[in-house]
Amino acid sequence: MIIILKQNATEEQIDHLLERVTTLGFQPHLSRGTFRTVIGLIGDETKLQPAALEAIPGVAEVVPIMPPYKLASREAHPQPTVVDVSGVKIGGGHLAMIAGPCAVEAADRMEQIAAAVKKAGANLLRGGAFKPRTSPYAFQGYGEEGLKILRETGDRHGLPVVTEVMDPRRVELVCRYADMLQIGARNMQNFVLLTEVGQAGKPVLLKRGMSATIQDLLMSAEYIAAQGNTQIVLCERGIKGFDPATRNLFDVAAVPLVKQLSHLPIIVDPSHATGRPELIPACALAGVAAGADGVHIEVHNEPESALSDGAQALLPEAYAAVMQQIRKLVEVVGGQW
Amino acid sequence: MIIILKQNATEEQIDHLLERVTTLGFQPHLSRGTFRTVIGLIGDETKLQPAALEAIPGVAEVVPIMPPYKLASREAHPQPTVVDVSGVKIGGGHLAMIAGPCAVEAADRMEQIAAAVKKAGANLLRGGAFKPRTSPYAFQGYGEEGLKILRETGDRHGLPVVTEVMDPRRVELVCRYADMLQIGARNMQNFVLLTEVGQAGKPVLLKRGMSATIQDLLMSAEYIAAQGNTQIVLCERGIKGFDPATRNLFDVAAVPLVKQLSHLPIIVDPSHATGRPELIPACALAGVAAGADGVHIEVHNEPESALSDGAQALLPEAYAAVMQQIRKLVEVVGGQW
Amino acid sequence: MIIILKQNATEEQIDHLLERVTTLGFQPHLSRGTFRTVIGLIGDETKLQPAALEAIPGVAEVVPIMPPYKLASREAHPQPTVVDVSGVKIGGGHLAMIAGPCAVEAADRMEQIAAAVKKAGANLLRGGAFKPRTSPYAFQGYGEEGLKILRETGDRHGLPVVTEVMDPRRVELVCRYADMLQIGARNMQNFVLLTEVGQAGKPVLLKRGMSATIQDLLMSAEYIAAQGNTQIVLCERGIKGFDPATRNLFDVAAVPLVKQLSHLPIIVDPSHATGRPELIPACALAGVAAGADGVHIEVHNEPESALSDGAQALLPEAYAAVMQQIRKLVEVVGGQW
Amino acid sequence: MIIILKQNATEEQIDHLLERVTTLGFQPHLSRGTFRTVIGLIGDETKLQPAALEAIPGVAEVVPIMPPYKLASREAHPQPTVVDVSGVKIGGGHLAMIAGPCAVEAADRMEQIAAAVKKAGANLLRGGAFKPRTSPYAFQGYGEEGLKILRETGDRHGLPVVTEVMDPRRVELVCRYADMLQIGARNMQNFVLLTEVGQAGKPVLLKRGMSATIQDLLMSAEYIAAQGNTQIVLCERGIKGFDPATRNLFDVAAVPLVKQLSHLPIIVDPSHATGRPELIPACALAGVAAGADGVHIEVHNEPESALSDGAQALLPEAYAAVMQQIRKLVEVVGGQW
Repeated sequence: MIIILKQNATEEQIDHLLERVTTLGFQPHLSRGTFRTVIGLIGDETKLQPAALEAIPGVAEVVPIMPPYKLASREAHPQPTVVDVSGVKIGGGHLAMIAGPCAVEAADRMEQIAAAVKKAGANLLRGGAFKPRTSPYAFQGYGEEGLKILRETGDRHGLPVVTEVMDPRRVELVCRYADMLQIGARNMQNFVLLTEVGQAGKPVLLKRGMSATIQDLLMSAEYIAAQGNTQIVLCERGIKGFDPATRNLFDVAAVPLVKQLSHLPIIVDPSHATGRPELIPACALAGVAAGADGVHIEVHNEPESALSDGAQALLPEAYAAVMQQIRKLVEVVGGQW
Repeated sequence: MIIILKQNATEEQIDHLLERVTTLGFQPHLSRGTFRTVIGLIGDETKLQPAALEAIPGVAEVVPIMPPYKLASREAHPQPTVVDVSGVKIGGGHLAMIAGPCAVEAADRMEQIAAAVKKAGANLLRGGAFKPRTSPYAFQGYGEEGLKILRETGDRHGLPVVTEVMDPRRVELVCRYADMLQIGARNMQNFVLLTEVGQAGKPVLLKRGMSATIQDLLMSAEYIAAQGNTQIVLCERGIKGFDPATRNLFDVAAVPLVKQLSHLPIIVDPSHATGRPELIPACALAGVAAGADGVHIEVHNEPESALSDGAQALLPEAYAAVMQQIRKLVEVVGGQW
Repeated sequence: MIIILKQNATEEQIDHLLERVTTLGFQPHLSRGTFRTVIGLIGDETKLQPAALEAIPGVAEVVPIMPPYKLASREAHPQPTVVDVSGVKIGGGHLAMIAGPCAVEAADRMEQIAAAVKKAGANLLRGGAFKPRTSPYAFQGYGEEGLKILRETGDRHGLPVVTEVMDPRRVELVCRYADMLQIGARNMQNFVLLTEVGQAGKPVLLKRGMSATIQDLLMSAEYIAAQGNTQIVLCERGIKGFDPATRNLFDVAAVPLVKQLSHLPIIVDPSHATGRPELIPACALAGVAAGADGVHIEVHNEPESALSDGAQALLPEAYAAVMQQIRKLVEVVGGQW
Repeated sequence: MIIILKQNATEEQIDHLLERVTTLGFQPHLSRGTFRTVIGLIGDETKLQPAALEAIPGVAEVVPIMPPYKLASREAHPQPTVVDVSGVKIGGGHLAMIAGPCAVEAADRMEQIAAAVKKAGANLLRGGAFKPRTSPYAFQGYGEEGLKILRETGDRHGLPVVTEVMDPRRVELVCRYADMLQIGARNMQNFVLLTEVGQAGKPVLLKRGMSATIQDLLMSAEYIAAQGNTQIVLCERGIKGFDPATRNLFDVAAVPLVKQLSHLPIIVDPSHATGRPELIPACALAGVAAGADGVHIEVHNEPESALSDGAQALLPEAYAAVMQQIRKLVEVVGGQW
């Protein structure tokens, strides 16, 4: 950690600061420049909160030089982590092709959608039984009944299932049915839920929050990992942007950036990122070309009567077409599923 | 709701759409323009999800004309709501002056801080017993022990207490000690928590999420209100911005905007909004001048040894100074506490 | 255009509004809903400013239903425009591979860089002779001397040259040397420059501004087109984002979105979008996979002594490697250069 | 400047780096930490471009410790600058109350507006003769004829006039009529225009760009100041935000932040910041309470027939009301006009 002092920092302030950091177990290294004085701290900076140092009189700025996450960092774990979801591998060249409706639908409709996405090449089935809806008056999901439908449909097609959990009290219930637990964007910093899910012993799909930096995302992964579970797949699903032309802003550079900083797999979700079916194929391909470990796409066979978010779902035939393009792309850029 | 059709929408698509919206209970009103066809829907649009209509072939865009919240809206409730926190009124000219440390500290330190902020004019005491920290390795709060300290300190000084609850399983516990429950920015769309807190029967301080629009904020208030509790105080605490010079971006226009759209009180939190003590007084005054129903400021008597977020705390004497300025301002712009 | 009235709009206000829009040459179509009244305007809305209507008492909101650009719109011109830069075609399956240093360097260094990028497959050479530097104390470019070096280097290698023009008074000068004029991100809404460049009769590379929506970008293209020049190539080069981990935020969805709305080619610039060499290859591939009509990359053979922006330049060998990957990708997704 | 090395930086890279910075005239100060090596540079860092150092192999990050602007900095000039616009003082306790229509209107209408704003307490008259319109088909301003009307109207009421200049070729023309030159938000980084205006010898009103950080804004002021002109007034007029409820996002914290970093006056423009008349009064008051050196408000006596941007103009009576509130506020927070 580097402490930059204010131009007018007094000698008393500097003495106090040196004493303070020494007490905290660091060896300070003072450097008086032409205009400013700078103090380097030698020691394990992850034990320090920068905010505490910034509060000391005379301090202008504190610059961390180590990332605040450890278990999620590439430095700590140079090899890519391969997550195993009931036999489907994700990461290290293995791709997750997750598809299904936004919300779990009635059994017959789930059957149709699952059959279609399986045929198109999906290897994981999604569907929400508990939905985080912005309106309290909107459909909130079928609950446990939905979990059963999802489980049975997945089993019939040999597709492990992934579904969102929103409530720490229901982690156990969801674990009874799901192969992978999804933490949604709005809960990315729900630390209570992260901790609970981290202890559940199931692979986790962690979606990036709408105003989360990549460091924030990795810190949330660290929460899960700190419970002893590093079977975590990250997901770029669009962040908040200023252009109303798309629902969110698809940050494709997050893919190579995460790969540089972390060993965890990262997939892309162009459905939520764009919110517009006509942009989904191009963004799915962009994600794969950038090195994503998989693609998450919402598919529905009758979007206009979908229980949730029909407007951003691809029709099964459109999904099959984009999967065919992804297959060709993968031959060029590597990866397999 | 208004449906704008694509330029190349076919007659079949239009017929299908008209039939569909009629089935849904709306009376469509077709208007063929020079370049586009538009359909107005007559009926109660809060029963419709725009996304479902957007999924219908031929539809270019769906424009809602009613806000999606009801209980939180000014139209439904023209008079300002006055929230009562164990005798302290907020809204309708009554101001909340909330102050205290970020995290609840040890009892003697809490005592010093509470005495100081009470003397300066605070009427509510804050302090976190459960802290939402971005790092799993950071101090997470004193838990129930912290709640006890907060309660006792508040009682000694006649200050009702407000504290954050993060876990739906602990709402009951927190209610035993707190006069007002805070939902933090990161949990603004934790719908499980909103619902649980809505049922607890205590006044709620709902902080705006970092990427939440004002409509998102009011929808989260609607979640609480839908449980029968409209004792809600909103809080603008800074949103995500692109300038690293401040921790967040203080959106002071949220104050008059909320007042126009909703009957709920709104206060400002310049501590989190700026993250920099030297900017807090100006932003506190700006908030009050804009019509805020109160000000939330973090105060600590020894920021460099604060258990959490010391860098953004005001010293008691700085807090007293800004309170004196607020007092003078209030004489001009109205309000009292 | 659709006018949504306020809930409490009076009959007098409605009468006044109907009279006003009729005077302006529109046929109003009134529709009284359950909660709100809506007026559709039949006529050519591009003749109206929404702001003027919003100022009329009783109006809550004005919703345009036509894009405000015409010459740049796909509706007006369904076929993709192919831009011809001294024989190099861009658009409609033809790709622009633009490479070179940030600023034009001394002749021998330009020679080395040009030889390298030509060999790697670039078909256009870039370099700035007039640099828009945020600091008045930074190197501002070699001026006309730089233009000469760029021209001669390009000619030697059969590479048409593209260079930025910042000053309307120098458009003529730059035209004497350049095959294509670049308008930089900071000048995207410099309407004086857009107009001047539109009249110059040279192909234009128009970079997206850092806070420009896609509609803003297309409106700036419209400015150029309105002067009779539709030889315009758009460029996504990153917009303002909140994560300091990258210099800008690469909005790859802009590529399919522009293709849907406009007939103009669009290329990507991962150098400026990310500002970090290690992220450039992945983002270049993402852009091509998303359908971009070309890639703009800064290349320098000795970044640490570059006259400008060395930190984001690729070394010639890294550029050759990414070009080889792009070549393979193009075989799959189509396009040629 | 501080250089943070990559964890795997080699001794050769470190040697090369030390040699390089020594050649550049700096005295390096090496500090080997537990995990990373850090090099402090002693010397005048404003002579270095961080980007050039970042390009050196082994370098992870370069952290400047001095602001890149000098003439605009508070450190260089502790006393607040007082700008004099033909007798009207701005800064150091003197407030600019700028009002008038968006575009200069016909003479009789200008007369009515000027009379009204003068009566309400404005001390400077604004109006655009050259308008930066996003559409090439929108009204572009009356040009020189508009300048004449503005000048004559201002003279009649004893109000110095401020008007925008967009074209470096017209700076001289505009100077013939105006007391103060405005540089609009879209031209904040039009460095050619900044330079030209800096040489004109007239006070400048520099509006913040929509994606400009405060450092960007101060760097643009530095461009003007570097030409020998420090008679610059900065203006916060809203930046790009994600909530469509307001036209821009009013960053009121920019006021105390600029005051901390710079000696230049800063005013606020709630008209452009919010784009909604009903939010303007609250934001104007917020700006003054935060310490702004003035307020810029668009006023029109018949918004619905305004030549430009009528929707965001206040009626004269609304302007008079907000001015009366500002007057009361100023008695409390200080300042005069």
